[in-house]
This record gives sequence, structure tokens and C-alpha cells, in this order.
Amino acid sequence: MPVNLSAPDPRSLHAIAGVTLGVAEANIRKPDRKDLLVIACDEGARVAGVFTQNRFCAAPVVVARQHLTMLDPDASIRALVVNTGCANAGTGKLGLTAARDTCTELARLLGCNSSQVLPYSTGVIMEPLPLDRIMVGLPQCVANLRANAWADAATAIMTTDTLPKAVSKQFTIGSARITVTGIAKGSGMIRPNMATMLGFIASDARVSLPLVKQAVTYAAKLSFNCITVDGDTSTNDALMLIASGRAAMAEITDANGADYAAFRDAVTAVAIELAQAIVRDGEGATKFITVQVEAGRNEEECRKVAYAIAHSPLTKTAFFASDPNLGRILAAIGYAGISDLMVEKIELYLDDVLVARDGGRYAGYQEADGQRVMKQAEITVRVVLNRGPAAATVWTCDLSHDYVSINADYRS
Amino acid sequence: MPVNLSAPDPRSLHAIAGVTLGVAEANIRKPDRKDLLVIACDEGARVAGVFTQNRFCAAPVVVARQHLTMLDPDASIRALVVNTGCANAGTGKLGLTAARDTCTELARLLGCNSSQVLPYSTGVIMEPLPLDRIMVGLPQCVANLRANAWADAATAIMTTDTLPKAVSKQFTIGSARITVTGIAKGSGMIRPNMATMLGFIASDARVSLPLVKQAVTYAAKLSFNCITVDGDTSTNDALMLIASGRAAMAEITDANGADYAAFRDAVTAVAIELAQAIVRDGEGATKFITVQVEAGRNEEECRKVAYAIAHSPLTKTAFFASDPNLGRILAAIGYAGISDLMVEKIELYLDDVLVARDGGRYAGYQEADGQRVMKQAEITVRVVLNRGPAAATVWTCDLSHDYVSINADYRS
Repeated sequence: MPVNLSAPDPRSLHAIAGVTLGVAEANIRKPDRKDLLVIACDEGARVAGVFTQNRFCAAPVVVARQHLTMLDPDASIRALVVNTGCANAGTGKLGLTAARDTCTELARLLGCNSSQVLPYSTGVIMEPLPLDRIMVGLPQCVANLRANAWADAATAIMTTDTLPKAVSKQFTIGSARITVTGIAKGSGMIRPNMATMLGFIASDARVSLPLVKQAVTYAAKLSFNCITVDGDTSTNDALMLIASGRAAMAEITDANGADYAAFRDAVTAVAIELAQAIVRDGEGATKFITVQVEAGRNEEECRKVAYAIAHSPLTKTAFFASDPNLGRILAAIGYAGISDLMVEKIELYLDDVLVARDGGRYAGYQEADGQRVMKQAEITVRVVLNRGPAAATVWTCDLSHDYVSINADYRS
Repeated sequence: MPVNLSAPDPRSLHAIAGVTLGVAEANIRKPDRKDLLVIACDEGARVAGVFTQNRFCAAPVVVARQHLTMLDPDASIRALVVNTGCANAGTGKLGLTAARDTCTELARLLGCNSSQVLPYSTGVIMEPLPLDRIMVGLPQCVANLRANAWADAATAIMTTDTLPKAVSKQFTIGSARITVTGIAKGSGMIRPNMATMLGFIASDARVSLPLVKQAVTYAAKLSFNCITVDGDTSTNDALMLIASGRAAMAEITDANGADYAAFRDAVTAVAIELAQAIVRDGEGATKFITVQVEAGRNEEECRKVAYAIAHSPLTKTAFFASDPNLGRILAAIGYAGISDLMVEKIELYLDDVLVARDGGRYAGYQEADGQRVMKQAEITVRVVLNRGPAAATVWTCDLSHDYVSINADYRS
């Protein structure tokens, strides 16, 4: 059961002018489920994204990167196509051909160039993409294209997710009401590095392409790059941002202006909510854990400490058991890889409860207080390093029996 | 149930001249179990060790390091004392005092100096050491000291271990038969960094102190530093080597001679067997996995790839399920942190079965072959990077429901 997460109300998901979505049941891996999605953009949309740093990156990641790079400056991305059930990763040259053929067929259906289409896949690794089924599904997706299909789209990209993830926010620039709507999927193999499993965010804002790129990088850093379920960086991670430019506003071109800041912050807020939804729906998750590391010398060391805690199977099982076995957190801090760390200076808090200082358990700490916090569904672990001005936050979940069950049975 | 591991036959464990062992039931955490051990050495023994690199290292680790450093060159270590049930880690100044008081009391009982005693602890972190119980137990340990107590000693240092771990080997130098006997404990929080949870190896060989130090470092690198159960580096890791010097042989002083090589290799063989026993008895383990990475540019990158595979919860749950979901291994190789890795060059084998090459699944691979290997209790994952002469091996186990149960319930 996901932690404090429910399916989005379709009525809360605002359409984005200039963007339509169409889904199909293409039987890619299992029958009777939506497993193919096309996101179509009107001419002129600005699209940018960040992708996995995994060296075994999937064929669609290679092709999407190529298409973004080779795109004629006068042309724009016209469609994104997403399949679940097969990651098309570890599939060699045949996988690249399958990803390109998918783009070519969708381009033919939409009347654009193949390089104006970007492909995305998610599912089992090292199995061939069933191209014939995708070819049958694509015309259905195109026939279904409509602006109010964000909830359907969020459902179509799910794999082990138990709930669809979609968020919509609005803000104003001058007299224009601007909308940002996004969807994401992901539940396991989650420790994004420069992007997440799959996230698609669109806005009707008019923004120059360099600033769309800047905004998506900024948003990824503060959202998907701060989460971990199991420490496994996927082969297929991608976060894409579409700015359709249909809002009645002057184009944003100044990176230092208030309009860019408003746009960037709205995109980031959507991205954070989607990223946290992935953790809340993490495989087997029963707790949502915020790990906050403060007063470090630099952000990198704060992230090291936060990830050491967030990846430790021992701290994660202690959260699952609601057991304030907090020495495990101290041990993780100790092996995080900061060679000159003075443990005597560190303070450890569970929510507002001071647990450890002066290199050991705080004299005023009561096990009952730790127990009270550990029983909550949402817990903040706060580590104060007391050696500098930097900070970092990572969101994660606990490690439960269901994580093992889900991943032992994934392919069956 | 441990993987292909049984309790050592006490008759197979050879005594070491000049070394005696005594255990007691000191009720440190639970009643009716051996939980305190004294290893006493005759005057003149050479003792060296390697310790955890965890910055939150336990009080006994701090004190043992200090005692080894401050020891008078004319004096020798006379005893090691080990308690289970409490790690005396994350216990601040009181913990240091408790570790020193333990040494002082044992020194008084044995008639030596406090700095000739080395303390070791293992158990729950961040709880105070029950010094009163240790004070009661120490005289019992001393009264029980005898040469043929290695099996008892192996039992006395267990925590979540399901079986005691002890190994004995003999070899000859000239006409002298030399014996090496060792014990170890550990089952969870196992990803040693420069040492293991707790390992004690003794020999009657006559070896200079610098070469004892060199041999224990060498042995640790090839044994305890190559294993991982859950990626958590403990606060209390220590591997100690005692050379009593009682064998009828000339002292080994030449690091390049055949005698040193024979001694070092026998110690290493004992250490490897003990380290593998820890993995075989890893918390919840049902499989013993050897991850062998070959043809890398240097050892460091081979270890990175091996540990990425060995730490991935997704590959570990796939082993548990006997599911040849081998894309998860490719994904782990891809995120191991080698930025210029050419995935097209990599070959992946399960035992003798070629699974992947040319960036994807090998055309001749049959799922039935992968399934056959995955069902075995012992599996070798072999990754050939094809970019250099280096290699590295890591031993690990799978991730099962029992791991979660054991660690969710550890303190209860």
C-alpha cells in the first residue's frame, strides 16, 4: 500500500493547450491494460529533457538523445511515444532499430519527420521490443488523441506502480494564467541519476528552448535526483519538459527574470510532488522517510550521508519494523565516506526528538519518544554535521517483505 | 539456513601452542548463552590487526588501536577480550571508559599491564556496555582458559550467526609443522572495509611483528574485504592475527622469502574460508554468489562493478527467486560508476553460460540454461569487461524474506 498517496482526480488535471495525449492497449506484455501512450505537441513546442547516466542505457534513451541533438533549429518535437512492458534495454542493435522504427511509424501517422519523435520504454530489461504490437497500437493512440487525457496517460505508463501519478498546478505571469501538468511512473529500480524512471511535464508557457533546458535540469536536481527506493539506477530514466507556448504572454528569455523563476519554480513543484509520489508508491513501501542532512561543508558530502542512510538495508528494515534501532543510522553516517568526519560534533534527530550527540546517545533521549516517531507513516531523519553551511535532502521508503516478494516475482 | 555450511568439528580445530581461550556466560544481553571470550597469549606473541574504517567506530576499536600503538617495544599483547550482545559503539566517552575498565580488570587478573589487553565488542549499537556483568564474567573466562577451546570460542562470539565459524590448517616450514587456526563471526551489517565484523586467527609460527602486520593486511584484502551481505560497514569490524612463535623454526623476517609466503598464504586461506562462511551464514541467505569481474583496466574498477552487482537489491532478490532476470545485472554494471565503459564489449556469464554480449542478450542464450544455473545454491556471475588485465572477486548472498524478518526483529 502506498504511503499517503491516492489516485489523482482527473478533474484536477488541467489540460495544456497545444498538447494532446492518446493511449492504447497494445498487449505488449500483458493483455487488457493500457500500455502505449503518445503525447503529441503542436508545431513550435519547446522540448528538453534529462536522461539516465547508466552506461547500459536503453535504446530509446540513445535515440531520444540523438533526435534532440539532430533536430533542425526551425523544426520542433511533435510527439513522444512511451511503451511499458519492455524496457528495450540491453537489446543491442536490434533494439536501436526497433526504437527508430517506432518513431518512423508514428511520424508517418502524424505527418512529420522521424527525428521529431522521441521514444521512451519501461519494463523488463534484455527482452526484444515486440515491434509488431506497437505498430498495431500506434494508430489507436493517434485516433484517441485529446487534451483531457492526462489521467489515462498516467495509467498507461505504470508498471509495478500501484497508483497513477499526476500533478497539475497553475500560476500567473502578468495577466496570463499558466498551467503545468505532469505525470510520472516508477516504483522499483529507483535511484535516479540526472533524471527519473519516466516523467513528463508540460506547460503552456512561452519559454525559449535554452530556458526550457535549464528549467528541466533545475527541477530534476531538486526532485527526481533526491529520491531512492532501492539504490538501483535504471537504464531508462528520463524526465521531459514540454513548453507548448500557447499561453497569452511574452516569451520568457531572461534567465534572471521573475517570469523565468515563476515558471521554473512551478515546474519544480510539480516535479517534487511527482518524485515524492514515486517514493510513496515505492515497491513494498509502508513508510515515507525524509532524510535531511544539514550544516555540512558542501552539498556533495551532505548527499553522501543522506544516501548512506537512505540506502542502508538495515536502517530501511528498522523503519519497516518501527524499531528505533538508531545505532544503525549512526553506523551509516560513519561509513558514508567522509574521511575527516568528527562524530563527536554530530546531532541526530528523529522529527523533533534529539537522539544522539557528543558521539553517542543523548542523555535526555527516551526510547518511548523514538518509538512514537518510528510508528508514524512519515518520518524525518535530521542529521546536523556542524561543520559548514551546506544541506541536502533525500526522500526514501522502508524495506519490507513486500519489496522482496514484488521483486522475486516480477517476471512471473 | 546457511548455504553449504556446517558447524566445525571441534576435533578438526588444532590448538595453537602459546594461545589459550576461555569463555563465560555473562548474561550481557540474553541469559544462558556464552557471550564473553578471553584469548590469552604467552609472553612474546606478535599481534597485529586491521579495523573498520567506519568513522563512528566503536569504543573498543579506538582502545585496541591505542593499545597497539602505545605498546612498549619490549612488551607483547597478552590478551584479547570479546563480548557479544552490545557493540559499545555510539556510546561516547562512557563507552571508552567501559572498554578501558574491561582491559584494566583483565590485566589485573592476568598480571599484566592494561595496554597489553585488546577489547572487542559486537551487538546492538548505541546502548551502554553492562560493565558490571563483564566484571563478573572475566574471572570465569580466566578460570576456563585452555588450548582446546576454539570451538567454544567460535560459539561465544556469535550474534545473529546461526552457526559458529572456525577453520584450522597446517603446513610445514623446514621440518616444523605450523598450525593456523581462526574463528570469525558476522551475519548482517557486513560490508567490511579493511577488516571484518570480528575475526581472530592464531598461529604458532615465529614471525617478526612487521611481517605479522603485513600478513594480516594481505589476508584481509583477499578475504573479508571481498565479501558483502548488505553493504553496511560495521562500527566494530576487526581482524586480528596472533603469531605465538612457539613452533621450532627460525624467525621469519624476510618479506620476499618462501617461508613468509607460506605463512601468509596459510593465513589467507583460513581468512578466505572464514569470510566465505560469514556470507554462507549471511542473514536470510539461501544462495552463495561469487561475482568475478575480469579484464578490467584496474582492480578498483573491477571491484566497483562487482560491488554494484553484489549490493543491488534487485539482483539479490532475483537470485533469491532463482529468476534469471539478468537485465538487472546489466543495469548494475551500467551504473557502477565507470564513465567510459563500452557496454558493447562486455560479456556476461552465469557459471559457464554466456548470457550477454554486443550490448545485449547473446543470440545463443536459452532461458532454460540460465534457469538451471539460477536454481543452484552456488552461482558464479562472471563479467568480462574486455578493456584491460585486472580482475576482482566479491562473495555475497541473496536477499530473502528472512533478511527482512531478521532485521525487523533484531532487538526484540
